[in-house]
Amino acid sequence: MQDVYPSRGLEEKIIKRPDATVYSDKSFGQQSFDNAQRKQYEENGFIVIPNIFGADEIEKLLEDIDIMASDEALLRKEEFISEPNNDSLRSIFNQHIFSSAFEKISKDSRILDKVQQLLGGDVYIYHTRINIKPAYTGKSFPWHSDFETWHCEDGLPRGRTLTAWIMLTDNTHFNGPLYVIPGSHKSFVSCKGITPADNYKNSLKKQEYGVPSVDAIKHLLKNKEIVAALGKAGTLVLHDGNLMHGSPDNISPNSRTNASFVYNSIYNKPTEPFGAPTTRADFLCLNDYAPVRAEK
Amino acid sequence: MQDVYPSRGLEEKIIKRPDATVYSDKSFGQQSFDNAQRKQYEENGFIVIPNIFGADEIEKLLEDIDIMASDEALLRKEEFISEPNNDSLRSIFNQHIFSSAFEKISKDSRILDKVQQLLGGDVYIYHTRINIKPAYTGKSFPWHSDFETWHCEDGLPRGRTLTAWIMLTDNTHFNGPLYVIPGSHKSFVSCKGITPADNYKNSLKKQEYGVPSVDAIKHLLKNKEIVAALGKAGTLVLHDGNLMHGSPDNISPNSRTNASFVYNSIYNKPTEPFGAPTTRADFLCLNDYAPVRAEK
Repeated sequence: MQDVYPSRGLEEKIIKRPDATVYSDKSFGQQSFDNAQRKQYEENGFIVIPNIFGADEIEKLLEDIDIMASDEALLRKEEFISEPNNDSLRSIFNQHIFSSAFEKISKDSRILDKVQQLLGGDVYIYHTRINIKPAYTGKSFPWHSDFETWHCEDGLPRGRTLTAWIMLTDNTHFNGPLYVIPGSHKSFVSCKGITPADNYKNSLKKQEYGVPSVDAIKHLLKNKEIVAALGKAGTLVLHDGNLMHGSPDNISPNSRTNASFVYNSIYNKPTEPFGAPTTRADFLCLNDYAPVRAEK
Repeated sequence: MQDVYPSRGLEEKIIKRPDATVYSDKSFGQQSFDNAQRKQYEENGFIVIPNIFGADEIEKLLEDIDIMASDEALLRKEEFISEPNNDSLRSIFNQHIFSSAFEKISKDSRILDKVQQLLGGDVYIYHTRINIKPAYTGKSFPWHSDFETWHCEDGLPRGRTLTAWIMLTDNTHFNGPLYVIPGSHKSFVSCKGITPADNYKNSLKKQEYGVPSVDAIKHLLKNKEIVAALGKAGTLVLHDGNLMHGSPDNISPNSRTNASFVYNSIYNKPTEPFGAPTTRADFLCLNDYAPVRAEK
């Protein structure tokens, strides 16, 4: 298969995205976007929608995180990732497998209608992830495109993948929110550096490959400004898999917790890695391609 | 001498500041504050004043930093502090001694009139400091009160000290700006932990003593919100020595550089350390008590 997003070579390059961002102009179900919202997503590569989930729903999800985080057997699983410098839980992968509340919400039409509309039909879950950025100690993530890693290390062929994420706590300027570069999803930063085998074991704690240079970020920011994705708990954000993003550390006294669900089009199944000697662990690139069906 | 700010003991405590914040209601020269500004400073413990210094002045100061930063002999001095994990320059102390442009601005009436008004008369320079937070790699500072360190480790007896600082680059939400807790200068967090000898050699790179707990910061934030001190290059900020502040890391592609000047009342000269076995190096607590006189 031709590699239309070459990366992890000897030089950094920025190329134009050869794929669409929005794959359908139809509505899907009751909860998909209107034309203005679709247009906004297409232009910016992300959209922030407040007040999607109620306080009771958020509370239930946070409870399920507490239950998972106190289960010694689960904590030993590779889906449970600690901070680089201490044992604090930093991420849980595939919470939709370990928690029925998260499983249910992964099929919720308030998310799924929008995702099916943007990706043009049936989708499956690529993986899901909870990111916990603890008060005081939560560390930063450097700038990266998720898609660059998924393409190079998982063999995801094309740009037809997005992340829907729910703010489970308020995301403020002060607790390590997601920073995004609007419109950056239309460019692909082909990153410098040959990926070592089993890179993911380190990169989930501290990403070193697939990180663009300062100059590349400055280029993406030409005539643009960084935007922080801020909102109250219950806010839903959708962002394109190739949107350039990062986040600072959290020195505030309040933890920041978000739950993300990565959906991939069933027409875009992974093949062989395009920029790494081995594939990543299965839990990062699930192979259950059964289309997700809305439950609500 | 009685210790009215006991700290570095076995337990953390929060006590009421026994000292005034503003020591004079007179104006000093042409450039001091009006009543509303004085009141604002007294209430919040800080004030941000845009457009004080012109682009040509800022350019000259940045040039002098470049000259200092490329002087191998200077870089070997203990006033020149590198980042904890690499050799990037993080801070220069006492730039007013190494650069005539900074010496001149340390006596500028646009700063000095305000400082003399707030501290009630003659002041001397306690130390000065340039903080460089490089793009991508600039690390965070945890929450702290400068005064707590100065009191414990230098023997500064009372709260009659402030920092005036100039933004030499824009300070945005994204390049690691100073976060402050408005009004926190009215409380003193007596910190837990016995200070080791020569603590400053580590604390200038990574502060571990004199750092309040998450609970103390939450207490200071009761009915308040963190404020980021933002502005364009040329903005002047004054903040009380005991204002609780910190800053996140800088993942943006733009460096953030600020120059600060700490002024102490001549009626508040340091004695013996109140919470450490030894005093810090002389360059952190200068002993030239000659009052600064305005030059402009």
